[in-house]
Amino acid sequence: MQVNLGVHGERSYEISIETGNLDRLGEKYRHVQSQSEQAGRVKIGEKIAIVSNPTVFGLYGERAISALKRANFEVSYCELPDGEKSKNLRSIEHIYDHALEHGLERSSTLLALGGGVIGDMTGFAAATWLRGLNVVQVPTTLLAIVDSSIGGKTGVNHPNGKNLIGAFHQPRLVLADPQVLATLPAREFRAGMAEVVKYGVIGDPELFELLESAPSLTQAQIDPLLLATILTRSAAAKADIVSKDEHETQGLRATLNYGHTIGHAIESVTGYQVVNHGEAVALGTIAAGELALKLNLWTAADANRQSTVLQNAGLTVAALPTAIEPANIDQIIAALKADKKVQAGKGVFILPTQIGATKTIEYRPDDLAHQLVSDPLIKQVLTAMLPIQSI
Amino acid sequence: MQVNLGVHGERSYEISIETGNLDRLGEKYRHVQSQSEQAGRVKIGEKIAIVSNPTVFGLYGERAISALKRANFEVSYCELPDGEKSKNLRSIEHIYDHALEHGLERSSTLLALGGGVIGDMTGFAAATWLRGLNVVQVPTTLLAIVDSSIGGKTGVNHPNGKNLIGAFHQPRLVLADPQVLATLPAREFRAGMAEVVKYGVIGDPELFELLESAPSLTQAQIDPLLLATILTRSAAAKADIVSKDEHETQGLRATLNYGHTIGHAIESVTGYQVVNHGEAVALGTIAAGELALKLNLWTAADANRQSTVLQNAGLTVAALPTAIEPANIDQIIAALKADKKVQAGKGVFILPTQIGATKTIEYRPDDLAHQLVSDPLIKQVLTAMLPIQSI
Repeated sequence: MQVNLGVHGERSYEISIETGNLDRLGEKYRHVQSQSEQAGRVKIGEKIAIVSNPTVFGLYGERAISALKRANFEVSYCELPDGEKSKNLRSIEHIYDHALEHGLERSSTLLALGGGVIGDMTGFAAATWLRGLNVVQVPTTLLAIVDSSIGGKTGVNHPNGKNLIGAFHQPRLVLADPQVLATLPAREFRAGMAEVVKYGVIGDPELFELLESAPSLTQAQIDPLLLATILTRSAAAKADIVSKDEHETQGLRATLNYGHTIGHAIESVTGYQVVNHGEAVALGTIAAGELALKLNLWTAADANRQSTVLQNAGLTVAALPTAIEPANIDQIIAALKADKKVQAGKGVFILPTQIGATKTIEYRPDDLAHQLVSDPLIKQVLTAMLPIQSI
Repeated sequence: MQVNLGVHGERSYEISIETGNLDRLGEKYRHVQSQSEQAGRVKIGEKIAIVSNPTVFGLYGERAISALKRANFEVSYCELPDGEKSKNLRSIEHIYDHALEHGLERSSTLLALGGGVIGDMTGFAAATWLRGLNVVQVPTTLLAIVDSSIGGKTGVNHPNGKNLIGAFHQPRLVLADPQVLATLPAREFRAGMAEVVKYGVIGDPELFELLESAPSLTQAQIDPLLLATILTRSAAAKADIVSKDEHETQGLRATLNYGHTIGHAIESVTGYQVVNHGEAVALGTIAAGELALKLNLWTAADANRQSTVLQNAGLTVAALPTAIEPANIDQIIAALKADKKVQAGKGVFILPTQIGATKTIEYRPDDLAHQLVSDPLIKQVLTAMLPIQSI
């Protein structure tokens, strides 16, 4: 499938999700290179620097390098530490130093091999070195395949907030090999399903029905054919939205934030150390579904359908990691106020009106507090989290 | 005048150069805000953070703040240290911290009040905070008015090279008040004239003739009316080129690098401590003119016309600061190789074919060495510079 961007398609790119893709990486990118040349687009040169972390590189690094070398690319490897803690400007400077040492030019490519953290950092370094290198995303987690690798959002964390530092920079190719999901920790797989459920609820009722009818949505038991469909369909949903609203200026891309407003606040208040992003989104989705019910936006039947699917993926409040001490509701409100989408003191909440449709609700974080704490389920979601001072 | 960018003009902006503009800053930006709103462009909110340094802010900060406050904007001030040495990621982090503390949102504006260094840093921080804030350029040096404030090139230095870290991010308004040039150090004024001469040589023979016929091009003696014409005509030349080649992909914007290839190498080899940017460009222009003569690209008469105009602005090899020890030609070659425009080992040289026209020459830095050192004048330019280890 394709993300279509630019009046003459000058920022368009292919998303390829196929078994065996990892070994076809070099040949696929050669194809992008020659197409790009014919279309007179930004040049793609011979140098590629793979950016990854020890865990992912240990599993797939050699195969990626071999595939690129078979296609005669000049390959180097830039290693970053594992985990969200490394998602800062120091890591970006490490990529810059690598780029300088290896003589990367404007036509060179940074290739992100990893999950969302690696993808976001590699994209940001590519956006800001020599005013823009090419970037290829090779996502290796469920969340990165269906979400973060597509759409050009790149960035790192500021000590006081996630992804506050960033830029839009579209990849030249997104290439995923579903086989890599076999080595993904079960917790990561479950977290990624939160974003999949999101696509169903915000705009793809057929995808939602597929999820609903599956006997299981866990990594161990999911049907491989269903998984393939889920990956393609979710990526297509993201690609479609990004194609219509590249820079989140039309309101459409904002619908992707379903479950993320409260999710981000939970991540922030717990210092990014208790739940991972997908888990926070799952909690945010549960809370948003409940809030929609409270505001009479959708029916109890729809809310139940959502709960059942999340449960089928192992995403329930009880199953997710919770903290020892309950969070202070004031901290959640403060985190909602600091959300980077807040404009003139007002935030935007994406809430469902039925399975497959959403409505955008403006809110003032203070006003929302009352709604949030007066609902037992939302309160349970919010106060299960431990306040931690900083990331 | 106007920079026209985007299919529907969605990145277009006005360049206003008029006496008294500094006091009209608030009312002008209000006008941009309401036009933007009508056109459905990226929103401009009420918060503006002025980024400046102690010297410029001491001279013009209060007037800028008053003008913005009279138009009811919410204004804050973020101070950065003076000079090129501060042009690094630490300063950018300082701007980020200010943005966070003052609750800047995506619709907020960073306003650069200063020369090229302040403008480049402010633009880069705006490009990368919350994936893009609005930026206004209020240039206060000749070089910034005619060149760096226009066109959206933003960035900071890497310890090993100038402007290696950066992004394209167009301003919403460029507003200059020629009166500020009265307080500019004479050396800075002279340096800015190097870029003015460049516009004449690369594409505006009428501007060149104006410069040629002037009794003097120095700050103390230049005719104020001629200066006004120079500012407008140079900015218009830059605006025109940027409008046609926003991201330097069409070759046209590359013509702006006339004098800059050797200029950048000289700056790099001397650790950015001997000559300033404009002076380096003047030296690079002298060398490029000589190289063009050597390659029979233009006539000795044209080369002489260029020398005379540069001389009239005080830009001669003898008048510019030179270093105690001569530079090693190998260092110059190494610096030419590290130029960020080098692609697949080949660099691009912009050389004049007559006053008002250029030709693009591909070169390999090693091959060029012979041409460079075998010419007495070029050798004089290059070897007058002192090698210094790092900036």
